[in-house]
Amino acid sequence: MTGNIVGERFVLVSFGESHGKCVGCVIDGCPAGLELSESDVQKELDLRKPGQSIVASQRREEDRVEIMSGVFNGYTTGSPIMMLVLNADKDSRPYELLKNKPRPGHADLVALQKYGGFNDYRGGGRFSGRITVSYVMGGAVAKKLLSTLGIEIIAYSLEIGGVRASNFSVEMARENRYCNEVRAPEQKAAEEMKRKIVQARGEGDSLGGIVECVVLNCPAGLGEPVFDSLDSDLAKIALSIPAVKGIEFGSGFGAARMKGSENNDEYSIEGGKIVCKTNNSGGILGGISNGMPILFRVAFKPPASIAKRQQTVDLEKHEETEIIVPGRHDPTVVPRAVPVVEAVTALVLADHAIRSGFIPPVLGVRR
Amino acid sequence: MTGNIVGERFVLVSFGESHGKCVGCVIDGCPAGLELSESDVQKELDLRKPGQSIVASQRREEDRVEIMSGVFNGYTTGSPIMMLVLNADKDSRPYELLKNKPRPGHADLVALQKYGGFNDYRGGGRFSGRITVSYVMGGAVAKKLLSTLGIEIIAYSLEIGGVRASNFSVEMARENRYCNEVRAPEQKAAEEMKRKIVQARGEGDSLGGIVECVVLNCPAGLGEPVFDSLDSDLAKIALSIPAVKGIEFGSGFGAARMKGSENNDEYSIEGGKIVCKTNNSGGILGGISNGMPILFRVAFKPPASIAKRQQTVDLEKHEETEIIVPGRHDPTVVPRAVPVVEAVTALVLADHAIRSGFIPPVLGVRR
Amino acid sequence: MTGNIVGERFVLVSFGESHGKCVGCVIDGCPAGLELSESDVQKELDLRKPGQSIVASQRREEDRVEIMSGVFNGYTTGSPIMMLVLNADKDSRPYELLKNKPRPGHADLVALQKYGGFNDYRGGGRFSGRITVSYVMGGAVAKKLLSTLGIEIIAYSLEIGGVRASNFSVEMARENRYCNEVRAPEQKAAEEMKRKIVQARGEGDSLGGIVECVVLNCPAGLGEPVFDSLDSDLAKIALSIPAVKGIEFGSGFGAARMKGSENNDEYSIEGGKIVCKTNNSGGILGGISNGMPILFRVAFKPPASIAKRQQTVDLEKHEETEIIVPGRHDPTVVPRAVPVVEAVTALVLADHAIRSGFIPPVLGVRR
Amino acid sequence: MTGNIVGERFVLVSFGESHGKCVGCVIDGCPAGLELSESDVQKELDLRKPGQSIVASQRREEDRVEIMSGVFNGYTTGSPIMMLVLNADKDSRPYELLKNKPRPGHADLVALQKYGGFNDYRGGGRFSGRITVSYVMGGAVAKKLLSTLGIEIIAYSLEIGGVRASNFSVEMARENRYCNEVRAPEQKAAEEMKRKIVQARGEGDSLGGIVECVVLNCPAGLGEPVFDSLDSDLAKIALSIPAVKGIEFGSGFGAARMKGSENNDEYSIEGGKIVCKTNNSGGILGGISNGMPILFRVAFKPPASIAKRQQTVDLEKHEETEIIVPGRHDPTVVPRAVPVVEAVTALVLADHAIRSGFIPPVLGVRR
Repeated sequence: MTGNIVGERFVLVSFGESHGKCVGCVIDGCPAGLELSESDVQKELDLRKPGQSIVASQRREEDRVEIMSGVFNGYTTGSPIMMLVLNADKDSRPYELLKNKPRPGHADLVALQKYGGFNDYRGGGRFSGRITVSYVMGGAVAKKLLSTLGIEIIAYSLEIGGVRASNFSVEMARENRYCNEVRAPEQKAAEEMKRKIVQARGEGDSLGGIVECVVLNCPAGLGEPVFDSLDSDLAKIALSIPAVKGIEFGSGFGAARMKGSENNDEYSIEGGKIVCKTNNSGGILGGISNGMPILFRVAFKPPASIAKRQQTVDLEKHEETEIIVPGRHDPTVVPRAVPVVEAVTALVLADHAIRSGFIPPVLGVRR
Repeated sequence: MTGNIVGERFVLVSFGESHGKCVGCVIDGCPAGLELSESDVQKELDLRKPGQSIVASQRREEDRVEIMSGVFNGYTTGSPIMMLVLNADKDSRPYELLKNKPRPGHADLVALQKYGGFNDYRGGGRFSGRITVSYVMGGAVAKKLLSTLGIEIIAYSLEIGGVRASNFSVEMARENRYCNEVRAPEQKAAEEMKRKIVQARGEGDSLGGIVECVVLNCPAGLGEPVFDSLDSDLAKIALSIPAVKGIEFGSGFGAARMKGSENNDEYSIEGGKIVCKTNNSGGILGGISNGMPILFRVAFKPPASIAKRQQTVDLEKHEETEIIVPGRHDPTVVPRAVPVVEAVTALVLADHAIRSGFIPPVLGVRR
Repeated sequence: MTGNIVGERFVLVSFGESHGKCVGCVIDGCPAGLELSESDVQKELDLRKPGQSIVASQRREEDRVEIMSGVFNGYTTGSPIMMLVLNADKDSRPYELLKNKPRPGHADLVALQKYGGFNDYRGGGRFSGRITVSYVMGGAVAKKLLSTLGIEIIAYSLEIGGVRASNFSVEMARENRYCNEVRAPEQKAAEEMKRKIVQARGEGDSLGGIVECVVLNCPAGLGEPVFDSLDSDLAKIALSIPAVKGIEFGSGFGAARMKGSENNDEYSIEGGKIVCKTNNSGGILGGISNGMPILFRVAFKPPASIAKRQQTVDLEKHEETEIIVPGRHDPTVVPRAVPVVEAVTALVLADHAIRSGFIPPVLGVRR
Repeated sequence: MTGNIVGERFVLVSFGESHGKCVGCVIDGCPAGLELSESDVQKELDLRKPGQSIVASQRREEDRVEIMSGVFNGYTTGSPIMMLVLNADKDSRPYELLKNKPRPGHADLVALQKYGGFNDYRGGGRFSGRITVSYVMGGAVAKKLLSTLGIEIIAYSLEIGGVRASNFSVEMARENRYCNEVRAPEQKAAEEMKRKIVQARGEGDSLGGIVECVVLNCPAGLGEPVFDSLDSDLAKIALSIPAVKGIEFGSGFGAARMKGSENNDEYSIEGGKIVCKTNNSGGILGGISNGMPILFRVAFKPPASIAKRQQTVDLEKHEETEIIVPGRHDPTVVPRAVPVVEAVTALVLADHAIRSGFIPPVLGVRR
């Protein structure tokens, strides 16, 4: 397959550009009989849309979704679901200036090289965070589908600008993450993170961070080793989110410093069920979900577009020069990435739930 | 596709089990006209085979590769290349004991659940590190192919048991990694790592660690955003190596704590060529190689099979019990994982080099 | 992949329903740098649109295409190209009557069974010939791409209602096919075919026929045996056109009655080039184009929706009943299928031209 | 995917050459828990093996299958199943003569062009009918799987050298086809076909023919429109059998000459079940099985390798010359193609039965 299609049985096709007419997606493989409305998708889009807070880009987009196919009388039909939002508030003028001055840390230069200069450079084109609108749309359908199994996905900003949330439970995270602008799982860290972001923005700089994601009630048995392991597919899609530089499951990089006797999750029996006493595996063993909460962390770099003076090259004159990136940019992508991480997680889980037979090709029969 | 096939234009099909008749692979999509012999593959297999050192499993396997198809008169034909090694030194007796006592940290229990008890549990079956023999075989072909572009892949044990190599260059790593049993890039760390491993083995325990991988001379332009990004595909395949718990590119998780002004790689001109002054991106921007060295790190957990007493459950009696895992196991997989990481990297790069048109469907014309 | 996606490197994603909001497609994998405008697509759509003639459905659709992504400043960017047309003239009332009375020969009943009654039955939904709008859109892009290699595709109505065109050359076919309402390659057959169609329509009946397709200037070497053979992929996509019941290449079913000495195409040298003296192979040998014109025929059944009384069942009452299909329908699909056959042929050839390296990932460099 | 892999959830990977070491396959995606032994596969291979009759090639091959992975204790494990047969009786000497003289009607020349002369030309290499050994192996597993649903596949030689079987039922075909050397469904045609074959062989010539295939007890609902329709996938794989030039379903090319009122299959109720009164659709409507017998015909051209003098070119001298093809060849492939057609049909049906949820990922639980 080509690069803008992901999944095997629940497939997301992403299209659109940052400053083109629209951003959207096609979902192919969604079982017939899922109740689905635009508001199901809209509520997810609203969580990632910009212009809502001081900690995000000031670009203002309604991001009003329209479902164009695949839903009939309020239910999915089994046919491809096409959805899109139109781009409204785009200001492409700064990008004419940038055309010959690639932004350090951004894909400007490699895109130009790879596509022979034909790429739509306005707003970063396909390399903009804006394309994650299509991930969130698809993820909304996937979430709805997973809810039929009781699966719940909870992501939050674990760390921003070096401030790491601590002393919180997954219940607290569920409660709090969308009650603060930075999507932190606890209030104290939220305030500190926000302070850091405001400070960085004031300096014309940007901040990185970490999104943690927990999946509850995922049945054991999802994942198709050896290459379509659950962690393999989660890693692949996570790295498809712009600005992501790493992913780790369970004890992750920490496991590199642990002994087997420390890292192994011993088995016990609780309420008649076999469970693990710890969850260093992050709910995935041998590439297959084991029934414990799935747990992983995704590292985001600080946004490349900063207002500070940086060294770059003038492509026309082929000489070194400087740049101060104009335009409206996020001082950190982490808070807005929270619903995106949830969305891609849902996409992978829905795909595997269908592959493993947990979700049937048709959900019930129309009355 | 199903779970044992990976790649788009240079495809690896993996088959075989730890204690079955064989382990092997089919490579489909290899261009015709590549000079290839069994010794090209054998030399890579020799680097991962067990029984060679005190730091590895004592299972003794010749791992003698046989190329069964796809090569004619010393060159690839464009047809599928099937290769295999026979399993020789297998001792399946311990696994009869394990049948009803899943090893903590291993896939025993999830495999049993997912495959209804039909899975070949001997030696871990498909969940054994032994299946990476097929990765290394395929990787050997991929490396040969990449060498036509001058691409070189250098992996090494960056960290084992908390001991991290430092003060070394990529040239030192290239020189040293296969001159010490732990595949470290510098001698001092090598000795310390070995000491740690011997100690852990003595305690019946095991160690985790980190493999770092550098790719030199990779041209700019590999990777097919948004989902088949180069880092996406590297992450997917890295997580398909047993015991891997995380991957990070360039500044990786460290980027989460950096500012944009610190993390951005500024451009300059050196010898008439545009280069980055730093390489925090790890050679990949927007999912596309940018011509800088590709750099990533893979975290390995400590092997689950340890000689220490651990708590588990008896599946027949459905009660808690204890286990001391018998058999021959690696005290750490990191040294033997070094050629495996190189192999999977080669597989992904070969696939993308073909996709991006850097490698043609036929290499020259037979005289 | 799921069922609405076809191709490997030049991929068509089809979406939309007959009486939904729209029909459209995403093309992923189109090289950057192809000059493309809406009029390139429109002119192909205009050839298949209904309401133009007495021999076709009286549904009136503008079928005005809008390119929503993937084109910038008049050239493809290498990003996914989304295109759609809105459905305008839809009259869904007859389908409420049909809901419980499946039309013989149509997919009504199997669709209902497969999708649990959730399918959009209006106008046949995804089973309508209207979805070929998306094939034609994608085919228009493919044709443009193939024209860079000089490849030309010429389809025409070889036979309708038992009237078979004869005594014509491919040049005549190129000239004539779009100069008569039935898309025949010669005028005499055209008139006879039209007469047959008008007569059948008058009887409330419908006619089948055969579309023949010739591809000129296709280079030798397209096709990836054994499963992605050129004829395999052409056969697959041809059978994806509604109402198609068969396909044959070159001497086709006739070859079943020939001897090897009759059917083999002997080689000779003409103008210094090796050519075949005959073309019974239809330009494909061993699944690979051999440089001769590609030649195949596609059989279309008569449309299922007829005004004659037929026996069916009442699904609610579970009893036998009769039906006279209401609504506006084509008395034969053959003439309107001509551009559709060309489109799917172009899709397959573009895909294989990219796979085989005849078309590069980028067409030139932007000035 | 690359060219030697087919299927989505039940995948066949084919490898091997006519005169190389072996021919074989990997099946990936077979559910765990299917009872499978080498004799299940051997009995199918025995039906296609050469050297058994005057109507076939005199090459003598044991074609003894060995299952190398994926089966444990008599049941499939859910892991990839690798199977192979070694090539024994190969005489490659004639092919050195053929190296510079491409056989008319064979893939010799296009293969040479496509693979730059690196292809294994001995015995036709990958373009030999011998590669269908891998199809039959995979098909044997698929048949076993389909038998869990009661699905039965019955193919036979409908026509050879112009002699067409008539006046037979599917029960007669089931009974007779493997009781005569030509695999005809009735005795009278069998004798006439054999006479024709012996005569053609005597003349140094070869014959084409038609294999008809019927599938009984296939449930309604298999097929994933629009592109992975059941007929689309059957057509694709049928055209992947060497020497196939066409396929038609149900009334097929005959439908082109029928009226809608003749071709439509009217519905009635029989024994409480909705059935079609006729089966012109061939059991597939809208790309989906409708519960009627699936029925299609595959046209085979006469084998290209004949002992008659033919015109060809000398590739070294670049001049016209003549050839009398040496070696042992089939005077017609039709009888030996019968089990091959059954095999590929089984592969497609197994794939779709899994995709549509009719076959679960695990068949029961190991006791």
